[in-house]
Amino acid sequence: MKVGVVQESFFGNKESMQTLLKKRVGQLAKDGANLVVLQELHDSNYFCISEDVKNFDLADGFKDDIEFYSKLAKNCGVVLVSSLFEKRAAGLYHNTSIVFEKDGSIAGKYRKMHIPDDPGFYEKFYFCEGDLGFEPIDTSLGRLGVLICWDQWFFEAARIMALKGAEILIYPTAIGWFDEDSDEEKKRQLDSWITIQRAHAISNGLPLVSVNRVGYERDKSRCIDGIRFWGNSFVCGAQGEIIKRLSQKSESCVVDIDLKRSEEIRRIWPFLRDRRVDYYDDLLKKYIDNG
Amino acid sequence: MKVGVVQESFFGNKESMQTLLKKRVGQLAKDGANLVVLQELHDSNYFCISEDVKNFDLADGFKDDIEFYSKLAKNCGVVLVSSLFEKRAAGLYHNTSIVFEKDGSIAGKYRKMHIPDDPGFYEKFYFCEGDLGFEPIDTSLGRLGVLICWDQWFFEAARIMALKGAEILIYPTAIGWFDEDSDEEKKRQLDSWITIQRAHAISNGLPLVSVNRVGYERDKSRCIDGIRFWGNSFVCGAQGEIIKRLSQKSESCVVDIDLKRSEEIRRIWPFLRDRRVDYYDDLLKKYIDNG
Repeated sequence: MKVGVVQESFFGNKESMQTLLKKRVGQLAKDGANLVVLQELHDSNYFCISEDVKNFDLADGFKDDIEFYSKLAKNCGVVLVSSLFEKRAAGLYHNTSIVFEKDGSIAGKYRKMHIPDDPGFYEKFYFCEGDLGFEPIDTSLGRLGVLICWDQWFFEAARIMALKGAEILIYPTAIGWFDEDSDEEKKRQLDSWITIQRAHAISNGLPLVSVNRVGYERDKSRCIDGIRFWGNSFVCGAQGEIIKRLSQKSESCVVDIDLKRSEEIRRIWPFLRDRRVDYYDDLLKKYIDNG
Repeated sequence: MKVGVVQESFFGNKESMQTLLKKRVGQLAKDGANLVVLQELHDSNYFCISEDVKNFDLADGFKDDIEFYSKLAKNCGVVLVSSLFEKRAAGLYHNTSIVFEKDGSIAGKYRKMHIPDDPGFYEKFYFCEGDLGFEPIDTSLGRLGVLICWDQWFFEAARIMALKGAEILIYPTAIGWFDEDSDEEKKRQLDSWITIQRAHAISNGLPLVSVNRVGYERDKSRCIDGIRFWGNSFVCGAQGEIIKRLSQKSESCVVDIDLKRSEEIRRIWPFLRDRRVDYYDDLLKKYIDNG
């Protein structure tokens, strides 16, 4: 599988972003990519940086956006993992990944299940938590375990995808630093983000693609200064080994992933064989208060 | 909390190992340790390297071993995490950690829940899988999430300990390389082992101590040549940041761990708040065949 990764900084508006992404996906297809993964909410600024009802307007074009990326997938002949702001009904929105087949048809969709909410990342205001569960998406390239950003901190999500036969884990993402944090704290955060995702690859014997946005986005509401999205999109193999790690700039590339390595790795590390499902009931609880 | 870590290579027999460990624990207590963690099956060679019924003799001294380590904990005034070969009945053995209080009393025990079995690590022959579940152990120093070796590959174990209020994750371990593997493969294995454990710390906002054996142990049955236990015991903080990592030699040291950092880290990364327990049922299955 040849995965195209598009790590971009936001500029202008939806039209300028779609024009840019069209160019990027086209180039990656020419370079041999058969799967392309875009970053989280790639059509807009990271509007969740503040709470403003006007931002719901950004989801008005949801159906047009689907049409745009459907055509792009078809024209480029790639499976395309998009990340869109879904308007489902008035007052009901989701953070949704639509996956397009090479012929432009919709292969499946995933609605972000774990929704964050902390200063600068007010997603619980904008997004209803997903109600489609953790269902991998079948495509002509294989079964894709598509999850989104905050999901990456929850091994439960990756595990369920693996138990349902996902052959690769994919995370469109938007994560960054606050400039006021110390360099040490920034290093710990970036390192944790890479580490926990590599651990999902290791736990499940699956390759993983994580595509982050990059660049500085100011909070116009001035609650915070802004977020410096840290880029560092990466691809790792079924032992968690880094195959490719991008910089902290706009960058696109094609990465070769050998899906057959999972078979080999799961033979030497047969974790799925040894899970103690007879003792996992407590995973279904928020906390065990008298544990 | 001041944690003493004892990473040793096996030599001689149980008596020589107990004499050595007595000396090591005594020194760590003098150096300020109030908790000491020993490596997996520290009293013997890693006998699971081959299948031989004679090795069950090694568990005959289980009660004497408890007495020995009880006295050691009391004499040194430390909480002591041991790792012993438990004979429960004829033909019924466990890989068990007994945790001793500073006064020599037994604070609790944990029977290894996830049992590996692959060439050179024939643990399913020797050990019945644990039937005590994932229960943290209360001590005068806090609530300890004691797990053992192969458990470290299963985030389920760490998570349940965290949900039951464990304040630290602790893994006595025996893991190593085969000399015939390539340097690249060895690097991937060691790196995976560190990465997945750091991820448990990150996932749960908890510090973690992993104590591995070190040194080369030959397989007298000649099924394989032997195992080169890779040492590299380490301690990391609640963001997965490495606080101390040992070498690939016999080594002991005291590491300072700030248990209060979990409170701080869980405020900025409130993963426990956002778990979708309403969609985790599939974690209780071995696989979802028609997923």
